[in-house]
Amino acid sequence: MTVTAPNGFRAAGVAAGLKASGVADVALVVNDGPATAAAGVFTANRVQAAPVRWSRQVLRAGRLRAVVLNSGGANACTGPAGFQDTHATAEHVATTLSATGGTDVGAGEIAVCSTGLIGERLPMDKLLAGVTAAVAGLSADAGPAAAEAIMTTDTRPKTTVVDAGPAGTGGPAWRVGGMAKGAGMLAPSMATMLCVLTTDALADPADLDAALREACRTTFDRVDSDGCLSTNDTVLLLASGASGVTPSAGELTAAVTAACADLARQLIADAEGASKEVAIEVVGAASETDAVQVGRAVARNNLVKTALFGNDPNWGRILAAVGTTSAVFDPDQLDVAINDVWICRDGAAAAPRDQVDLTGRQVHIRIDLHAGAATATIWTNDLSHAYVHENSAYST
Amino acid sequence: MTVTAPNGFRAAGVAAGLKASGVADVALVVNDGPATAAAGVFTANRVQAAPVRWSRQVLRAGRLRAVVLNSGGANACTGPAGFQDTHATAEHVATTLSATGGTDVGAGEIAVCSTGLIGERLPMDKLLAGVTAAVAGLSADAGPAAAEAIMTTDTRPKTTVVDAGPAGTGGPAWRVGGMAKGAGMLAPSMATMLCVLTTDALADPADLDAALREACRTTFDRVDSDGCLSTNDTVLLLASGASGVTPSAGELTAAVTAACADLARQLIADAEGASKEVAIEVVGAASETDAVQVGRAVARNNLVKTALFGNDPNWGRILAAVGTTSAVFDPDQLDVAINDVWICRDGAAAAPRDQVDLTGRQVHIRIDLHAGAATATIWTNDLSHAYVHENSAYST
Repeated sequence: MTVTAPNGFRAAGVAAGLKASGVADVALVVNDGPATAAAGVFTANRVQAAPVRWSRQVLRAGRLRAVVLNSGGANACTGPAGFQDTHATAEHVATTLSATGGTDVGAGEIAVCSTGLIGERLPMDKLLAGVTAAVAGLSADAGPAAAEAIMTTDTRPKTTVVDAGPAGTGGPAWRVGGMAKGAGMLAPSMATMLCVLTTDALADPADLDAALREACRTTFDRVDSDGCLSTNDTVLLLASGASGVTPSAGELTAAVTAACADLARQLIADAEGASKEVAIEVVGAASETDAVQVGRAVARNNLVKTALFGNDPNWGRILAAVGTTSAVFDPDQLDVAINDVWICRDGAAAAPRDQVDLTGRQVHIRIDLHAGAATATIWTNDLSHAYVHENSAYST
Repeated sequence: MTVTAPNGFRAAGVAAGLKASGVADVALVVNDGPATAAAGVFTANRVQAAPVRWSRQVLRAGRLRAVVLNSGGANACTGPAGFQDTHATAEHVATTLSATGGTDVGAGEIAVCSTGLIGERLPMDKLLAGVTAAVAGLSADAGPAAAEAIMTTDTRPKTTVVDAGPAGTGGPAWRVGGMAKGAGMLAPSMATMLCVLTTDALADPADLDAALREACRTTFDRVDSDGCLSTNDTVLLLASGASGVTPSAGELTAAVTAACADLARQLIADAEGASKEVAIEVVGAASETDAVQVGRAVARNNLVKTALFGNDPNWGRILAAVGTTSAVFDPDQLDVAINDVWICRDGAAAAPRDQVDLTGRQVHIRIDLHAGAATATIWTNDLSHAYVHENSAYST
């Protein structure tokens, strides 16, 4: 049920003709309340798509009545006209919702997300007609349809439901639902990750914002498929309050984090062009920042990634990647295990490399910095022929 | 004549059996003086190979009598035993040179460079026998043989000679010669770049050091084939003083820079697995640091690199890469030209993408930040199937 699993939400997914293939490409998620608190986390890229600029501005008020999402075009690097297109889309959602719902909705309560090729204007006639159809098709059962409509080269929709109620109460007291698409390596120029989370908990915007930031920090921010930062990345959290339950900050953060972690794993698992799902666990770090920095440096190293594609336990390349960081460590005290075989101890060869079995899809790299007690895990993929193929054959 | 073009140098290149293929794999460059001033620049990687640790230590005295180089093994991540191997190699060079040359040479005057797979000990019996043969084969004509012996997956040796004498004097007053191998993308786990420069100018170690650092800063440091930093990168400059000419600091820097620039271009041109040589010229930057940061971010972006492999003028990916930097710019004022066609103006689409011809090997990307007058060019390659193949099929 994804975004419609919590009470208070309706959704829709329709085909508006933005994609030549004719599959669904416009999704709508509507919060029917009673509350409309919301929060958002956006790409750190300084080149930001029009929908990111718009939604960031809208979220300053901490309220969202709806989110409209389209695949088939990123509306990034489209200048003032592209921003006007986003604005017009939000206006059309607001007007159509007001006309059909009996309540007055403003464009300033509508977030917009787009994904697809950078640098081209959206076909607005098709998009607005799609919005009209989506409003007409809104349903409390249409979460799965919405999740399908935001797919680009994803081979399957990514959805999650977290039951956050206390055990033994005869049912969940409140829930978090979610849908996501994308992540680096997924698609050419569509590295974009979009995610909409919903909850029927009662929470004010500041609490939602704190929970969402902490959740993203340890989940989506630690997925690094190909090191490329999108112009469109957006994660939104909408709270309807329909459960009447007000969770503690810790409970809210835990549930949102569980939902994000589930979606992040699905993104890495479906990264197109990838033959491996790689967990890089850094232990013994002096700080969590050090652990993340080291994990990310290894995750982004093309020589490490191609070695993994070739089933080669090339720990020397891992050490070379660690050596590019400013983390606290002594090069002569680095240990590396690949799939639980410690092939490097004290910065030199240990177990024979032929003891490492890399034939499976799951790869676990553990790096011990011997510099403290902090730890972090970064998730990535290998660098394959299929990645090069997908990303060299896209827009031409 | 490469390293033996300047007066006062002999060299040798021999096959010691370090490589299974039986080709030359040990090179020796000897400075016969009268001066022995020298300088070195080493990898910024904190995981440094034994020969880097050794040579860095040796260079503190600013004097080198010889450099011994081997391909077929990097001697990196080999622990204290690996460092002993490097020490033993330098000792053997010193002893053998002393025995044959009539002068007393110490191990502390011998630099060592290694390139090849990380994490494995060198076969010392073969290496030392190779050193003995190299000393026996030293010749003022053997610069080319030395340049061949340091090749790994290079398809051709890289050499240079810069005649630094004044025009119309009937011949060069002094020269800079050089040889190099490698550079990122060249080879699996052998991203290592090794370079030995020689000159018959008279210069003290401090002047050599200043000239070499400035030369590397604007040449080798701006070549970024695959973003991977080696454990073994080494650039050495030896001055024999045999010409009797003492150039000014400016003259010395200009000649060394010209030699480095020539070698850097050859490295990019021979990067294996590459189908494009890409110059990323950043103009209108607020500072040279900004220009370098932007150029490097674009050079390291896998989505940009795969697009170039696919002959796709995907300027949106270039903007997304620029957006990851902290350089001064306004996203709505970015201009991008590919092969002289301005396909992006003011952060949005301009000339039609089909006007861009990417069928050739040379690609010129110009990015105007409109934030100042500083400029820098970074050289890189595309990301191809051949790169993935080479780097996934190496050590296994």
